[in-house]
Amino acid sequence: MDNPSSFIAQVCRLIEPVDQAWLSAARERQLTLTKPPGSLGRLEEIANRLAAIQRTATPVVTKKRIYVVAGDHGVTTEGVSAYPREVTPQMVDNFLRGGAAINVLGRAGGVEVRVVDAGVDADLSDRAELIQAKVVRGTSNFAVGPAMTRLEAEACLAKGIELAQAAANDGISLLGIGEMGIGNTTAASAITAVLLGCDPETVTGRGTGLDDGGLAHKIEVIRRAVEINQPKGGDAIDVLAKVGGAEIGMMAGIVVGAAANHLAVVADGFISTTAAALALRLQPNVRDYLFNGHRSAERGHTALIEFIGEQPLLDLSMRLGEGTGAALAMNIIEGAAKLLSEMATFEDAGVSNKE
Amino acid sequence: MDNPSSFIAQVCRLIEPVDQAWLSAARERQLTLTKPPGSLGRLEEIANRLAAIQRTATPVVTKKRIYVVAGDHGVTTEGVSAYPREVTPQMVDNFLRGGAAINVLGRAGGVEVRVVDAGVDADLSDRAELIQAKVVRGTSNFAVGPAMTRLEAEACLAKGIELAQAAANDGISLLGIGEMGIGNTTAASAITAVLLGCDPETVTGRGTGLDDGGLAHKIEVIRRAVEINQPKGGDAIDVLAKVGGAEIGMMAGIVVGAAANHLAVVADGFISTTAAALALRLQPNVRDYLFNGHRSAERGHTALIEFIGEQPLLDLSMRLGEGTGAALAMNIIEGAAKLLSEMATFEDAGVSNKE
Repeated sequence: MDNPSSFIAQVCRLIEPVDQAWLSAARERQLTLTKPPGSLGRLEEIANRLAAIQRTATPVVTKKRIYVVAGDHGVTTEGVSAYPREVTPQMVDNFLRGGAAINVLGRAGGVEVRVVDAGVDADLSDRAELIQAKVVRGTSNFAVGPAMTRLEAEACLAKGIELAQAAANDGISLLGIGEMGIGNTTAASAITAVLLGCDPETVTGRGTGLDDGGLAHKIEVIRRAVEINQPKGGDAIDVLAKVGGAEIGMMAGIVVGAAANHLAVVADGFISTTAAALALRLQPNVRDYLFNGHRSAERGHTALIEFIGEQPLLDLSMRLGEGTGAALAMNIIEGAAKLLSEMATFEDAGVSNKE
Repeated sequence: MDNPSSFIAQVCRLIEPVDQAWLSAARERQLTLTKPPGSLGRLEEIANRLAAIQRTATPVVTKKRIYVVAGDHGVTTEGVSAYPREVTPQMVDNFLRGGAAINVLGRAGGVEVRVVDAGVDADLSDRAELIQAKVVRGTSNFAVGPAMTRLEAEACLAKGIELAQAAANDGISLLGIGEMGIGNTTAASAITAVLLGCDPETVTGRGTGLDDGGLAHKIEVIRRAVEINQPKGGDAIDVLAKVGGAEIGMMAGIVVGAAANHLAVVADGFISTTAAALALRLQPNVRDYLFNGHRSAERGHTALIEFIGEQPLLDLSMRLGEGTGAALAMNIIEGAAKLLSEMATFEDAGVSNKE
């Protein structure tokens, strides 16, 4: 792509809020179904919004896909993760062989899992099933300078938009995002601190398992990264380039691309929600297309949920990533859609309505 | 059944706590799987308990079934529900035709839905697909006397135990309970108030949609029922007979029978949790076999959840019943089981473990 910047801007201009008329049509239909009004709670809200996204009163979830996007982080040289960096490519192979948690949940829930190399620091070009989209071979250490150039950050976003477009072309009706990247909670906490304008300490957690000393060090590294790079919170691409990661940028692009294609998209946990937050900063209208999969046990997610303004569907103390929370949430969204589209009406079923 | 009382006592004696050795074996296996320890949160606890229930380190959820148990309530003559009583048999027909919410979620989640007549006030004997288990043709109005005789209450429990046994014989590996019965939130609130020894006002809600006046009246009816019948909170069968309902008793029996057959069972919302609470009062060991599907929006459920000591898996502001929350939760339990049984280990996948 010659000019990702203008491509991103062009796609963002296409994104409009969902049509309130379809929301109303869905709400009307809910009242005709054989249940007390409102008794399906959030399932009704989910289905109504999906109806508006799909511009129908009878939304469908036929094909589901999760993109698991992988990338490495230069900041791991600062010792911010409990796991060594080679785990990222090892886990990519585990995804491709179907042995990881997301593969199991994908099979259980009928969700296609596609694995994307956005920035793994290893040559994975011979992996046939892997979507080859490498923008960087690991980011640079953002504790000493920017993680990526602005052009690289834009390339991540642009590629993500294309992945969402490809999903729409493949007839996917519900999209999810997940990630793998040793060190990426450090990037996610840095992004969150900058976007929300808060102290890194309040949004930094233990990741895959740091002890107290490790956590204090991680916070200090993030403070230094923010100090050195001075990312501008109002400019999502600047934040992504300076303290982000390739997989986070590509997930943000998927969210933007989903909205542009009238496709509902489900964020997973903490890291993918930072991607969603970056997408929102680029174009606030994407909020209408976004569902929040689960409440991560990782510190920082709660503040981010407030920022997104969309409560998670699940709260199971998970903190794995990979799209595992999104996969479970997609079943709930599918159920909600089917309820609205398939339940009998009072009239059809000959059931007496409220006295 | 000649003597349901001794049958129930005999089954209760069979129920033992789950084997701690299998719990430990499952926890050990979790540590070998390709994920940071504990990162799947409650999914790990669920899978470990399922392992202990099934006495294996690799639990399976192959066939899932929900019993939707229906019954009518004499107390509806007091005007405690927003819907007329004829809705119970109408909804039974809706279940049998596959048009209700539970049918939709059952199809979506691969859960077999079996409908049971425990006490509907209508002749449904010609419904071929309906499990004919009618104990009473609607309960008596417990605002003026006991809802059922003690023998009838025992017959409900015994039949429920038999339904769980039948599920075990059919190779079901995960069971759910749900209900339909106009007026049954009144019975559920009365049971909850008696079991927990609390003021009915604190555990009585709007059911399918009462207004403020209706709610105040419902609370007054429950107070009167407790005053007149003097149910003994320590005697589950006495509580069930005096202020319960046929479908609640049969669900309690299913919970007891599931535990006796080493079968995990998922409660739905408020009403089915009162059934689970009655089962616990009969035999505290059933707790080990019980999962709590969702947090109902109905007032009274929270206190009951404390009593059960088992947090719900979902919190989606649902208040429909029918087993809808259980159906969604069963997918989560199935996913949890598959994660424990199917994920690759660090060794198999060649993934480096924590540094």
